[in-house]
Amino acid sequence: MLRSRVGLARSRLFVARSLHSSRFASQQAARLANVSSQQYEKIYQPAKGSYEPLDNFQRRHLGPNPQNVQNMLKTMGYDDLDNFVSKLIPPQVLEKRALQLDAPAKGFTEQQMLQHLQQIADKNLHKVRNLIGKGYYGTTLPPVIQRNLLECPEWYTSYTPYQPEISQGRLESLLNFQTAVADLTGLPVANASLLDEGTAAGESMLLAFGAARRKKSTFVVDSRVHPQTKAVLTTRAEPFGIELVEVDVNDVDACKKALGGKSVFGGLVQYPATDGSLLSGQVMKSFADVLHANSSLLIVASDLMALTLLKPPSEFGADVVFGSSQRFGVPLGFGGPHAAFLSVPEKLNRKIPGRIVGVSKDRLGKPALRLALQTREQHIKRDKATSNICTAQALLANIAANYCVYHGSEGLKDIARRIYGFTTVLAQKISKESPHTLVNDTWFDTLTVKLANGTTSQEFLKEALDKYSINLFAVNEDTISLSLDEIVTKEDLLNLCQLFGSSADLPESLPEFPTELLRTDAILSNEVFNQHHSETAMLRYLHRLQSRDLSLANSMIPLGSCTMKLNSTVEMMPVTWPQFANMHPFQPVEQAEGYRELIKSLESDLADITGFDAVSLQPNSGAQGEYTGLRVIKAYLESKGESHRKICLIPVSAHGTNPASAVMCGLKVVPVNCLPDGSLDLKDLQAKAEKHADDLAAIMITYPSTYGLFGPGIRTAIDIVHSHGGQVYLDGANMNAQVGLTSPGDLGADVCHLNLHKTFAIPHGGGGPGVGPICVKAHLGPYLPGHDVVEMMTGAPKENRISSVSSAPYGSASILPISYAYIKMMGSKGLPFSSVVAMINANYMMTRLKSHYDIMFVNEMSSTKHCGHEFIIDLRKYKAQGVEAIDVAKRLQDYGFHAPTLAFPVPGTLMVEPTESENLEELDRFVDAMIAIKGEIDLQVAGDPKGSVLKNAPHSLEDIISSSDWDARGYTREQAAYPLPYLRDNKFWPPVARLDDTYGDLNLMCTCPSVEETVAKQD
Amino acid sequence: MLRSRVGLARSRLFVARSLHSSRFASQQAARLANVSSQQYEKIYQPAKGSYEPLDNFQRRHLGPNPQNVQNMLKTMGYDDLDNFVSKLIPPQVLEKRALQLDAPAKGFTEQQMLQHLQQIADKNLHKVRNLIGKGYYGTTLPPVIQRNLLECPEWYTSYTPYQPEISQGRLESLLNFQTAVADLTGLPVANASLLDEGTAAGESMLLAFGAARRKKSTFVVDSRVHPQTKAVLTTRAEPFGIELVEVDVNDVDACKKALGGKSVFGGLVQYPATDGSLLSGQVMKSFADVLHANSSLLIVASDLMALTLLKPPSEFGADVVFGSSQRFGVPLGFGGPHAAFLSVPEKLNRKIPGRIVGVSKDRLGKPALRLALQTREQHIKRDKATSNICTAQALLANIAANYCVYHGSEGLKDIARRIYGFTTVLAQKISKESPHTLVNDTWFDTLTVKLANGTTSQEFLKEALDKYSINLFAVNEDTISLSLDEIVTKEDLLNLCQLFGSSADLPESLPEFPTELLRTDAILSNEVFNQHHSETAMLRYLHRLQSRDLSLANSMIPLGSCTMKLNSTVEMMPVTWPQFANMHPFQPVEQAEGYRELIKSLESDLADITGFDAVSLQPNSGAQGEYTGLRVIKAYLESKGESHRKICLIPVSAHGTNPASAVMCGLKVVPVNCLPDGSLDLKDLQAKAEKHADDLAAIMITYPSTYGLFGPGIRTAIDIVHSHGGQVYLDGANMNAQVGLTSPGDLGADVCHLNLHKTFAIPHGGGGPGVGPICVKAHLGPYLPGHDVVEMMTGAPKENRISSVSSAPYGSASILPISYAYIKMMGSKGLPFSSVVAMINANYMMTRLKSHYDIMFVNEMSSTKHCGHEFIIDLRKYKAQGVEAIDVAKRLQDYGFHAPTLAFPVPGTLMVEPTESENLEELDRFVDAMIAIKGEIDLQVAGDPKGSVLKNAPHSLEDIISSSDWDARGYTREQAAYPLPYLRDNKFWPPVARLDDTYGDLNLMCTCPSVEETVAKQD
Repeated sequence: MLRSRVGLARSRLFVARSLHSSRFASQQAARLANVSSQQYEKIYQPAKGSYEPLDNFQRRHLGPNPQNVQNMLKTMGYDDLDNFVSKLIPPQVLEKRALQLDAPAKGFTEQQMLQHLQQIADKNLHKVRNLIGKGYYGTTLPPVIQRNLLECPEWYTSYTPYQPEISQGRLESLLNFQTAVADLTGLPVANASLLDEGTAAGESMLLAFGAARRKKSTFVVDSRVHPQTKAVLTTRAEPFGIELVEVDVNDVDACKKALGGKSVFGGLVQYPATDGSLLSGQVMKSFADVLHANSSLLIVASDLMALTLLKPPSEFGADVVFGSSQRFGVPLGFGGPHAAFLSVPEKLNRKIPGRIVGVSKDRLGKPALRLALQTREQHIKRDKATSNICTAQALLANIAANYCVYHGSEGLKDIARRIYGFTTVLAQKISKESPHTLVNDTWFDTLTVKLANGTTSQEFLKEALDKYSINLFAVNEDTISLSLDEIVTKEDLLNLCQLFGSSADLPESLPEFPTELLRTDAILSNEVFNQHHSETAMLRYLHRLQSRDLSLANSMIPLGSCTMKLNSTVEMMPVTWPQFANMHPFQPVEQAEGYRELIKSLESDLADITGFDAVSLQPNSGAQGEYTGLRVIKAYLESKGESHRKICLIPVSAHGTNPASAVMCGLKVVPVNCLPDGSLDLKDLQAKAEKHADDLAAIMITYPSTYGLFGPGIRTAIDIVHSHGGQVYLDGANMNAQVGLTSPGDLGADVCHLNLHKTFAIPHGGGGPGVGPICVKAHLGPYLPGHDVVEMMTGAPKENRISSVSSAPYGSASILPISYAYIKMMGSKGLPFSSVVAMINANYMMTRLKSHYDIMFVNEMSSTKHCGHEFIIDLRKYKAQGVEAIDVAKRLQDYGFHAPTLAFPVPGTLMVEPTESENLEELDRFVDAMIAIKGEIDLQVAGDPKGSVLKNAPHSLEDIISSSDWDARGYTREQAAYPLPYLRDNKFWPPVARLDDTYGDLNLMCTCPSVEETVAKQD
Repeated sequence: MLRSRVGLARSRLFVARSLHSSRFASQQAARLANVSSQQYEKIYQPAKGSYEPLDNFQRRHLGPNPQNVQNMLKTMGYDDLDNFVSKLIPPQVLEKRALQLDAPAKGFTEQQMLQHLQQIADKNLHKVRNLIGKGYYGTTLPPVIQRNLLECPEWYTSYTPYQPEISQGRLESLLNFQTAVADLTGLPVANASLLDEGTAAGESMLLAFGAARRKKSTFVVDSRVHPQTKAVLTTRAEPFGIELVEVDVNDVDACKKALGGKSVFGGLVQYPATDGSLLSGQVMKSFADVLHANSSLLIVASDLMALTLLKPPSEFGADVVFGSSQRFGVPLGFGGPHAAFLSVPEKLNRKIPGRIVGVSKDRLGKPALRLALQTREQHIKRDKATSNICTAQALLANIAANYCVYHGSEGLKDIARRIYGFTTVLAQKISKESPHTLVNDTWFDTLTVKLANGTTSQEFLKEALDKYSINLFAVNEDTISLSLDEIVTKEDLLNLCQLFGSSADLPESLPEFPTELLRTDAILSNEVFNQHHSETAMLRYLHRLQSRDLSLANSMIPLGSCTMKLNSTVEMMPVTWPQFANMHPFQPVEQAEGYRELIKSLESDLADITGFDAVSLQPNSGAQGEYTGLRVIKAYLESKGESHRKICLIPVSAHGTNPASAVMCGLKVVPVNCLPDGSLDLKDLQAKAEKHADDLAAIMITYPSTYGLFGPGIRTAIDIVHSHGGQVYLDGANMNAQVGLTSPGDLGADVCHLNLHKTFAIPHGGGGPGVGPICVKAHLGPYLPGHDVVEMMTGAPKENRISSVSSAPYGSASILPISYAYIKMMGSKGLPFSSVVAMINANYMMTRLKSHYDIMFVNEMSSTKHCGHEFIIDLRKYKAQGVEAIDVAKRLQDYGFHAPTLAFPVPGTLMVEPTESENLEELDRFVDAMIAIKGEIDLQVAGDPKGSVLKNAPHSLEDIISSSDWDARGYTREQAAYPLPYLRDNKFWPPVARLDDTYGDLNLMCTCPSVEETVAKQD
């Protein structure tokens, strides 16, 4: 019955899956996916004598070969994969619906994929000069950074730096990012990036809202803020009942009036403004004064490049400054990913959203870095969190930071001066020689021009494109704007002169930046920004940073709930192709045919995989996906006249982002109990659903559960919620255990989000980027987010869409080729084995470990002896004897491994998720390490001084070499460093010893320390 | 007077410099190059207010900025660069002729260069399917190897592994290469690559010649050897008076007759042959028997891919097997670079040319790798050397080795079986269904077809290209051949069926490889070939290897005579573009317009820089360049009827390749004395020139001298030789100190070679590839090497050309874009500063070091207080007190540095060359390390036990952690590991302790040890 409903919904025209009639679609929808051992052999390698190419991707992506798998099955007492899977997944859950991807069933080979993507890429008009601006500018990614950071697996496969001892490289780089932002904005506390400029605006608004203890509800926005920023503000304001009031801050009287009401908690201006003009310092200052007099905050959207020259917003009273760091070397990428920045004064340092890197010291007193103030984050504060942000844009922030390192303060100023100079020459040419009218009389890089003689913007843009291959921005019917950038050339300028009808006579040299606007303080004076300007020096700096970090290039990162699978080279290669990298998100749709094709097909595949009907790729993180999914549910309920439904049921075991997201959507969280095995307490659910039947909006469930188990009651739970009028949000964080075996849609849910950066092979980037698309049933499709500036290229018409959740229409578009390639290389036959092999890997490890450790929910229970794709090692019983989970986590670093997920979902435990890409040797190596550590635990528990090797872990080189207390330790240097033989040959060394978190939070320092400060810390 | 002669010569039409009339040529030929400090500021950064782009390359390539340079000048007592240069270079030598490159005078910016190269690249027809074969086959470079090896600076910027302790990664990889070659060929001793298949043939022939003690002079060659191999053999045979006799080994009687004479020292067959046929084992065996009966050797040219299936040549009596490893993942690259292989039985292990990696042990007894049997090499044996080979193709051999690691033996066999299967199907289609006649009745991958119905090869090739985008090979007017490869598809096969007029009916599955041809032994059974088949595992293996090696990504490599300058990312990027990578060297010239343009322009620039008139890019190493230059001189002398001139004067201070090359050209070496300062003894020269006036062929001089000094007598020396009828060969190894300041041509020489892999920014690749073009005066231009298979696209007509010295017409063509980009980004104004800054760096270091160490030839002499671009630290006086130069070299590893050149040109010394790309901080860091080591020398000399830190260096981690003798050592672990503070933050650790060379040579092991052997070694 369910299937037919789905079938009906799918027939609607607008849905993403319309591509299913394409040349690749299999005719065997009804057939079950075959996940037998025999089928694994088949997809792993072409048959003997086959004409097929041999470079099939599956055998490179999946760790254990068929022989390994048979051996692992044998260890666990099975003879076939199919049989194994049936035992793992309850029959009412296991669907094994054959996928019908828009790709050959066997998947593209690697070389076919590269060719196919090249063909798609070539459909993007990327050689055009994009002067569209609006927060996205041409820039040059320095080649040495491209090759040794963006294209370097040591950088892009590392995880969020929650284990600071093995993350010192990217932490240093992120500290550089914070330092640059703090210097340029003039506000001393900056975070290590946010998702994009629009969400940063939203976070800023909510920061001010929170600072006013949510007691005031008006937010004043100057009219000259980027349109997409306004759109995201609108989205974010609504659930909190925040009223956005647009003003012209130059109109002092009107502005005063708007600010008059006591309800104003903050105001936002943009500097430089979206029309290019520079608000005068005096105007900003008086706006700030009025706001401050009312205990509300001044927020300034700004631009880092302009700020290398302009007086910083801090001089005019700004309390929050945010913006995008894209133009510091990060490719346009059709809108993202780019790192947004946000900085505040010290008084607001506990209110700042997102991750902050701080300086602390290690066990030996050596300065060391780690994420500071983590207790603010949603995985601790849950529905009390100030933000649901989890992912940052670490990789992109690191590009921006290293762009600063490479250019230094003078280099950046030179770039900015040149941009200003070109803009000024053009402004003079337009205002003095052209028939058109320059609208803004101040500028940094952007000019807005009202066209003369009845020329329409459309005509003008067409001429610019046809004659000069230039894209401009249409402000309205007769006004255009353009922004010059780092890569502007004299030829561009001459083209523009011609376009605007001015002469080709240019002044001999570019005008200087006006002194009255020029900042007078030193910026980027820290040593790191002044010593790596040659390519050789830059290469060495990047190499030094990456060599301090553990990544997938070193060893497995078996993080429960965050699969760290292979990010294959073929998937990664297209990201830096200019055809994808050089596209502006606001380029006319017809110039982006390649992206359109890629996005449409990816949406279709994701809909197929999740069993849904429509997809939005706009959310640029998992948490954003959650937020968007709930907003879409709300919009749907509202359309049915049920806007009173505001209760969101959330199991107590849920990831902290769930309740945080619900709150941000204006929902009220009602917790649902869990059974001892972590599965939903259906009785409690029934009771809560009944109790709140009138107001029930939704339930958020993670499946398999955050404990990594396939609970059998999922369909019942969904039925309960549906029967009480609620919608079902299935958190797709664990989708990687479901692909081809079951799906949120098949189970009956209404919406789910995906983590493309986990399940679909986008790398973690050292802490971002992420992509968190949502997939929905047909009835929710019309409400997927739209965009205010450009038309969406896929999906429903714009009428019912919610306003945008990201600045760019397709969020982090430039990394979508990664998931696209992953899905289509695995193919419909290969993809289910991602799930199956992940589960066999997890169960194999658990089988080997369960005689050494307590495994939660599994070996204590009678119902099952299996985990899903992850399992939890329970260490709580050792706490009384002085061994904590963190000791095991840190000691694993000495064995060359990143710790599994610590203390989530259960404090005092480690959750292990090996993923499908790890081979048997690596699984065994990790298990051997864990068993060896068990021996060390036993020693410690027995009071043997050798056991202190756990408490002193990790052992940095300096500890081994310079510490004078060895004889007192009870264990040798060898035992510390080489507890197992493989380490002698290949060991990753933590560059610092265990971090002192408390010290760092008590002595917060979030920018690069000066030499004096470093010395002081060492004392 | 000299200038006008040069001017005249340049006017000849054929010379490379004809491009000088291009759009970039400056009109100011007469002006001197300006190398003042002021000019340095100008080229370093565009002027304020300039419209120019800011991404100029010079400031990224050159280490010290203008302010640094002023400070360094001050330290040395100068106020301007120009002034400094005038003191360094004698006035009669300093020309400062302004260069007139085919590029903007200021140089292309980085982004302009990429665009420009893209335009050139797009002119190559690279999307065609090249089935031309003849030693060059389509292959897939696995993307994970492309990104993490070929595009990875940690791999490509490392030096030849002469310092084994910090080269264990690539040594391991090269040992894998040797192991794979030994396994596949069946002969147990393989070297770590040769330059290409043609030179490997030459080396093989000379090995056999040498084995016969040069007492026999006939070499028998089967007719079915690749034509380009025969051509190189011809070149190589001539100087030794070796007669090449072509036979058909299948014609037993004729063959026996040819072998009858006692003068035969060896015979060569190709298996599979160039026509595709497989010589029967019986025929080979009986050929071998006849040869062996005559104490001569059987040499077999073979193909590694075929050998994964075919019975190995060792089974048929082969004494030497050689070939190209290109098809193991190395791009076609228009002919190179590719690694050739060569293997021999154990009895010939002291005769094998080229580098061999061997297993030995370190000071602690741990197995460790290093280059074995180095005493065979030319830098020791000079004119007694068996070969002049210096460079290998390490980077490409490493690609091939890792291709084996990635695929494993079964994977390789699958590829080979598939190739064979496709070929067999096609063979059947042609022989059974087409009107044409299949010539060969056995095959692996190649079919030769005689065309029917009067169809000419030309017509047939045209049809293949026009209709199917396929390139075939024209054997003669009515016969073509084609070779299938790893990347062949069913579509290719169907196209070929259609082309040959066969039906499209294909058998259901590919035919199996015939059992009677199939080898029965196990290949690649070593563990390393069986555990890294998933991409994750492969990535980790590559990462582990590179992390064991010190490269330019870690620190400066201040090797005297081998400049290790920046290999910039922009220069490296085009190497892996498909437009350059996918071109077959025998593609018709009109398909390679991009290469033609690039090569022509590069030749023109090199001619300009060296002051010569014509250039050959064919030699693929410096030593090859020497050889070619001397052969060209000989050809010129012969053309004048002076073939009796056979004396080659060589200073005793010359690099060992010089005498070795001379001998290989059939010249007789007469040494010329040097003065105590290393400069030529002009009196002795005069005497020798007079004595040999009748027979004088040439002199080979290195300038600046191998001691790094600009001797003032160079013009006099040249005049002396010219006046006695000799030609002057100027070794361009030190060209990097001359560019824009003087040049071999300006000084009056007739020919020079260049090391593009040194002076012109091609990276050393961990021991190759190299490129050694020669530049000649106009009178020598007509004799530059030609090619037997394709027409040369540049230079003189073919009549007078010497036969080819490399297999491919342009040698290692695919890396030429590196030098092209380097020259054109530096520009004519920037390039001289490469030389000037290199010299200021060297002199600055010397100034800081001279109060701590004796500097040879400089601080002892009255005439000058300067060095050129390198200087020699004399450590001989400490030898008696137990400190040798090698101790300092090894101790430098503990300080994180690669040693300078050890014991060349003077035993007991270190020669330091910092290059222009190192910045002041790095120079100081190295100097600080040397000064600290001086303190350690003093301790050792004084008998302080702390001094033993030198003798025990380098200290591996295992030494620090596991050694139990610390208390007895007299120095602490800290003193061993962290002698200077910077090391605590950033230290490269040697993975093994000091190597035991003697042990390794006495217990030669040149393939991967089995587990048992490893264990045995450790005992």
